Amino acid sequence: MLHQLGLVEALRAFRTGATTPDAYLSACLDASRARNPSLRAFTHLTSTLKAGDGPLGGIPVGIKDIIATADMPTANGSAVYDGEVPASDAWVTARLRSLGASILGKTVTTEFAWRHPGPTHNPWRRGHTPGGSSSGSAAAVAAGLVPLALGSQTFGSVIRPAAYCGVVGFKPSFGAIPRVGIHPLAGSLDHVGLFTRSVLDAAYALSWLAASDDGDRHGRPLVPFAVDPETGLDPLPAPRLALVRTAIWDQADPGQRALIEATARKFRAEGGFVEDIVLPEGFEALWSAARTILAAEAGTTFGTLVARFPDKTSEPLKDLVREGSALAAVAYVEALRLQARLRADLDSVLQGFDAILTLPASGPAPEGLAFTGDPAFCVPWTCLGVPALTLPAGESPDGLPLGIQLVGPYRADLRLLRIGLWCEAALARSPRFPQDPA
Amino acid sequence: MLHQLGLVEALRAFRTGATTPDAYLSACLDASRARNPSLRAFTHLTSTLKAGDGPLGGIPVGIKDIIATADMPTANGSAVYDGEVPASDAWVTARLRSLGASILGKTVTTEFAWRHPGPTHNPWRRGHTPGGSSSGSAAAVAAGLVPLALGSQTFGSVIRPAAYCGVVGFKPSFGAIPRVGIHPLAGSLDHVGLFTRSVLDAAYALSWLAASDDGDRHGRPLVPFAVDPETGLDPLPAPRLALVRTAIWDQADPGQRALIEATARKFRAEGGFVEDIVLPEGFEALWSAARTILAAEAGTTFGTLVARFPDKTSEPLKDLVREGSALAAVAYVEALRLQARLRADLDSVLQGFDAILTLPASGPAPEGLAFTGDPAFCVPWTCLGVPALTLPAGESPDGLPLGIQLVGPYRADLRLLRIGLWCEAALARSPRFPQDPA
Repeated sequence: MLHQLGLVEALRAFRTGATTPDAYLSACLDASRARNPSLRAFTHLTSTLKAGDGPLGGIPVGIKDIIATADMPTANGSAVYDGEVPASDAWVTARLRSLGASILGKTVTTEFAWRHPGPTHNPWRRGHTPGGSSSGSAAAVAAGLVPLALGSQTFGSVIRPAAYCGVVGFKPSFGAIPRVGIHPLAGSLDHVGLFTRSVLDAAYALSWLAASDDGDRHGRPLVPFAVDPETGLDPLPAPRLALVRTAIWDQADPGQRALIEATARKFRAEGGFVEDIVLPEGFEALWSAARTILAAEAGTTFGTLVARFPDKTSEPLKDLVREGSALAAVAYVEALRLQARLRADLDSVLQGFDAILTLPASGPAPEGLAFTGDPAFCVPWTCLGVPALTLPAGESPDGLPLGIQLVGPYRADLRLLRIGLWCEAALARSPRFPQDPA
Repeated sequence: MLHQLGLVEALRAFRTGATTPDAYLSACLDASRARNPSLRAFTHLTSTLKAGDGPLGGIPVGIKDIIATADMPTANGSAVYDGEVPASDAWVTARLRSLGASILGKTVTTEFAWRHPGPTHNPWRRGHTPGGSSSGSAAAVAAGLVPLALGSQTFGSVIRPAAYCGVVGFKPSFGAIPRVGIHPLAGSLDHVGLFTRSVLDAAYALSWLAASDDGDRHGRPLVPFAVDPETGLDPLPAPRLALVRTAIWDQADPGQRALIEATARKFRAEGGFVEDIVLPEGFEALWSAARTILAAEAGTTFGTLVARFPDKTSEPLKDLVREGSALAAVAYVEALRLQARLRADLDSVLQGFDAILTLPASGPAPEGLAFTGDPAFCVPWTCLGVPALTLPAGESPDGLPLGIQLVGPYRADLRLLRIGLWCEAALARSPRFPQDPA
């Protein structure tokens, strides 16, 4: 079906004349309109789409609803902002438009990208969560409604929903994409992330979105790189992967754990190198450091808001503010220093390896929409700010997607994506789309 | 006298053959050896100096003793580190060496660049403070012992001692020079700064020292620029200066206030434009924000140290740790946000102006060595991270130096230095050196 074309596939089809940008945009918009009443991936859909010019000309994009759009409401998943239309685009929205992309709609987020869930279903199983907080972006890409959607990750909000929905999720290095005009949850942890259906699509999108802007003081531009949509990108041959189980390995679903072991065997059989390593003990402090950083920063951001709008803010948000307000400044500063120190230490730990192979989540998408799942398997990598990529790699016994997660050294994003290309080829999975249950 | 040559003057003299690098280095070292027993500017002097090759070849430099030097002790002004020699150079030390500079010695700092004073005298008046925390660097440059010295500024530790000692002090934009290997006081406020005897010397030094390094996560590189020592740099003609008195104007010495008014008249007479402006009320929060940031970060850094070495740490340092330990995380996060917001706001405030003209200190160097003077007139600009430059502009009735301070928009360092060149020319002062009282 036309709307199921991936990003680079679509660009190639435009060039050969197999389809046109406007036809593709219409197909995606029509499919989204048809599917959204049951899937609930979008909070808002555009009424018309016209193809723009540029490297993303003719590409429809879903944008997480904490990212400002000057022509569409941006509610941040919160009753406080219900129906509000921002005065201007977020940096990344404006950048997408300048590249020729068309904003197809705004995707469901949990309240301010924290816990309180939205109405989105997992496209593979109605009544299961798509994960969060970038719930709608993951679901929309999985359902083939858009080839690219933007999300954000503070704890595990890109990698986890991507894994639950069986798509590619990529969280670039901290600071790689400016966050100006995106509602902050915790500025020292917030990352813009990408949902696509192939690693090449993610690499192509990142090559155009990576930048820095003075409005984001945490920005740290990547070394620029280009991806030719016709020739693609070379996989990194025979990558050396460090299988990292982390201290919370036992909390993972046995099926998810078995998938990682089976994947390691498959990679070895394909010529890759996979060896178990145990991170030094200090890394166990990352979970509590991330929690401290989150609570202190979110507590500052939302303190006035929850006091002013007690009826329009959720209990999880209020709990987070309470937690943050009780923290000492020195504990927070200490957590930030640990974050910086371990980010540098990871480089030494990974000497001799190209990337880490680990779990993206504890297992398949849990049942129910009230709980978007446990981000714990993403937290250390988010806190370190290192690039993280999830790929679909299998299914649970009852047919829900399961993924793997690859993690690279800080700011070696292109290299991690090239490793991802190799892994994607080694996994040799054909594209799959969920059936519309409606 | 040969040792009184400025940095660029010396480079020119090397080129014409008027002197040689080795002769100049020897003259500076001899003068330092002779002068230091009474001045107490250096904690350590090198035994020999040999000229290196490069853009700073033949230039002797004094380095504040919180900056690591692998071949000289680095005590951080603290009994805890007395006699310790670091395993490696600080980034800026290594950079200076790679540029051909020779490290003449380590200069006195207050304890960890906070309050507890060192033994340095003001070269213009024995028994008066040279200011702090970069006490020895300011004194050594003023006494003509080195043409360039490195300091650091967290509150007012470059601009204030430079003004007290009658030399040029330059604090570049926050993030312009990496701080790797420098003992932190407060990472969100610490700047590397320069002491010279002319604006051109400061510009030349900055052109070679400005950089970024992954080891300093607060780095934000300036747009690179070059200064030809033969042709110099063009002054910015007819600069538009905003005379800013700040909320603490009344705390300044009447003579210091009168000097600013007289300087404004002189600049107008020379074709400059000087107009009074009042900063928006929000800027008054900068003093308490800076204090919160300092206490939280220093409290974290020194908490363990003061507990472990109660007899080797001062009361002011212990007080700072106590103050920081009592702070809430949300108050600290709020202070950091205010800092970032006002840094951006200053750009709008300065629309129509090239720089701010204001006080570098409350007046001339106070009597006594126990108190290094009040940094309050520097604190807002340090907290904002904007470039700040002090120039000698007059004397107090009893002959102590008085300066002016120029402050520019964030990261417009070169432009501020070119304004400084214009002001320096308009002030038309001849180089002065204090007589050795010994």
